[in-house]
Amino acid sequence: MNAELIAVGTEILLGDIVNTDAQLISQGLSELGINVFYQTVVGDNPARLERVVREAKDRADIIITTGGLGPTLDDLTKETLATVFGKKMVLHQPSMDRLTDFFKTIGREMTKNNEKQAWLPEGCTVFTNLWGTAPGCAFEADGKHVLMLPGPPRECNPMWKECAMPYLYKLAGGCIVSRNIRVFGLGESNMENILHDMMEKSANPTIAPYARTSECFARVTAKADTPAECEKMLDPVVDEILKLLGDDVYGVDVDSLEQVVGDGLRERKLTLAVAESCTGGLLSKRLTDIPGASDYYLGGVCSYSNSVKEKVLGVKKETLDTIGAVSPETAEQMAVGVANALGSDIGVGITGIAGPGGGTEDKPTGLVYISVWYDGKFFTRKMQSSLGRDRVRMQAASTALDLIRRHIF
Amino acid sequence: MNAELIAVGTEILLGDIVNTDAQLISQGLSELGINVFYQTVVGDNPARLERVVREAKDRADIIITTGGLGPTLDDLTKETLATVFGKKMVLHQPSMDRLTDFFKTIGREMTKNNEKQAWLPEGCTVFTNLWGTAPGCAFEADGKHVLMLPGPPRECNPMWKECAMPYLYKLAGGCIVSRNIRVFGLGESNMENILHDMMEKSANPTIAPYARTSECFARVTAKADTPAECEKMLDPVVDEILKLLGDDVYGVDVDSLEQVVGDGLRERKLTLAVAESCTGGLLSKRLTDIPGASDYYLGGVCSYSNSVKEKVLGVKKETLDTIGAVSPETAEQMAVGVANALGSDIGVGITGIAGPGGGTEDKPTGLVYISVWYDGKFFTRKMQSSLGRDRVRMQAASTALDLIRRHIF
Repeated sequence: MNAELIAVGTEILLGDIVNTDAQLISQGLSELGINVFYQTVVGDNPARLERVVREAKDRADIIITTGGLGPTLDDLTKETLATVFGKKMVLHQPSMDRLTDFFKTIGREMTKNNEKQAWLPEGCTVFTNLWGTAPGCAFEADGKHVLMLPGPPRECNPMWKECAMPYLYKLAGGCIVSRNIRVFGLGESNMENILHDMMEKSANPTIAPYARTSECFARVTAKADTPAECEKMLDPVVDEILKLLGDDVYGVDVDSLEQVVGDGLRERKLTLAVAESCTGGLLSKRLTDIPGASDYYLGGVCSYSNSVKEKVLGVKKETLDTIGAVSPETAEQMAVGVANALGSDIGVGITGIAGPGGGTEDKPTGLVYISVWYDGKFFTRKMQSSLGRDRVRMQAASTALDLIRRHIF
Repeated sequence: MNAELIAVGTEILLGDIVNTDAQLISQGLSELGINVFYQTVVGDNPARLERVVREAKDRADIIITTGGLGPTLDDLTKETLATVFGKKMVLHQPSMDRLTDFFKTIGREMTKNNEKQAWLPEGCTVFTNLWGTAPGCAFEADGKHVLMLPGPPRECNPMWKECAMPYLYKLAGGCIVSRNIRVFGLGESNMENILHDMMEKSANPTIAPYARTSECFARVTAKADTPAECEKMLDPVVDEILKLLGDDVYGVDVDSLEQVVGDGLRERKLTLAVAESCTGGLLSKRLTDIPGASDYYLGGVCSYSNSVKEKVLGVKKETLDTIGAVSPETAEQMAVGVANALGSDIGVGITGIAGPGGGTEDKPTGLVYISVWYDGKFFTRKMQSSLGRDRVRMQAASTALDLIRRHIF
């Protein structure tokens, strides 16, 4: 089976927005083992949309559209697809009721044009939109499958995952479950090397490596008749991968390092404070991206100048003058200094040269020292990267989180 | 004239990457006044690519491809376009020399397959690739214009702007120059209202409003025979917009608020320190995104807990107990407190409720107080937003930068 994606929206053709829906859906189809040969973007123009749909009908088994389901006059996706496939449009009363309720709840009058959203191709499967107003839908006709999803990513994303993907699993007569094994401290190609033999052998579940900024993950995907069977197939494979990757795995199906560290601190009733030089507040920002971080995160000091390192964190002038600000000694004094100054159980110190300038032969750009202080002990790591300012900073902040997870949890 | 974009790359169809090239090129074409009716993505498959190219040839005046210009066997864009338009492929010696030099410089052997990159359709205009190895090119045939650009955004982006756009200007028999007027403190729709009459009247230069997270900008674009004429046409329009938008403009053709503030501080030899509560280090992170920020930025304190506000910043316990942490008084004490603690000329204090939890009836989620202290005076602003944690934090950090720019520069 192969699928073709059609995004309907003049705002993509104008370059106002980028077509991220296509990426999301393509990734999902790839997991499902469905090939995508073409993606097309077309404006809110019925003649051009019809041309693209007829072309897709000619060459694909599954057509997935995004956008053009809204209430305005130029939202014409459903009408055009219905025309091409010879379907009548009918009122879907439950969708109409949802719309009426929605406008009542927000206390606004429901203008007449909104009703358009409740008209759908006859006999279709309706994807209730829990994230917006326009429902999505799917139907089969002329031996082809058609799925229509709303355009805004905050609606398209969950509807794809919760409605459209399950619909396609069922088409394929089975179901699919994935687990993501998140890794820090190992590059994607190293991970791939370690998992190579397993990946070669595994047809179902499949194992696929992915890279993210300064980390990577392995996605294990099983296909079977029921979720329970999928889970049963996943368990031994995931266990084997965990054994192979060891301590470099920071979690399975978790959001991020900062989430894992946050949960771990909360569980252990430990508090954290961080002192940042070259990362300039990035670690603090990432920790506080998580709602509820105040349960364990007391705060931080960005000591961008040496005077702040001395005055606020108590780094010794002698250390700064002789060994220098970019040194394991300074990182350690920053870690214990911020813990003392802010009264936390754990302290982090990060000092280095993010670049592009500031490097020397002894201390090149991309050299960073990261230290974690806890219970009288230091866990300190040297990092060297040549990937540029943003990625050096990102990796240094991640390294600090990783040290906490490895050595304190 | 209308253009059609064809991206060639299986990695887009797999969802591994998102097609940002299409956005960049569509924006540029929109500036040039060239309509885009279709964007297509197709894999590294010559038969399917040929199908898409023939379709585009049938309906567009200009075909712009991205990707598939590299050295490997599956890079077939040039060959396929040449076939469809009946062009011979010939060796372009200057490109071959560049390739040979490139490999010499990096000290690696140039494998035979790399030579493929120097073969181009006969009689084409070559776009020298200063950002990678594969040259781009353009030709006219059968009454259509064809442009081919490399796929990686770091190559496609500059080649589009520096080679392909000028090529298209010349096609149109003229040149084009834009200026971006950056605005903070005014929503996109407000800005549009203020500029409405001007926008209606202006055909050349055109005025287009754009929104960014927590800010917006107006792009003014002139078309004329020479850059000097464009500039001459732009000057009075930009001046009039600056008058209309007044103090809400923070710069013309500048990178960001943090860059403008950084440059202003350096120029005035002023130093800055920031105290952040709900923004959790985001402002500090943004300030230090700019290389060389250590010239004016001493550092910051993230006072996520009240104890840090008291101990490190000297916020009065009485204020916290009676008026509360989220108050103009606390913001001001944080601002002056961090300036004193770190020894800076200017201090910033930010305190609020980023959400999603933590709001009350009196102090709802999204309420933030931002204060700037300088030379014994406070500049304090209250902000209320319902746009969610990330955008509340972003807007609060931007507001702090904006206060510095407005009141100190």
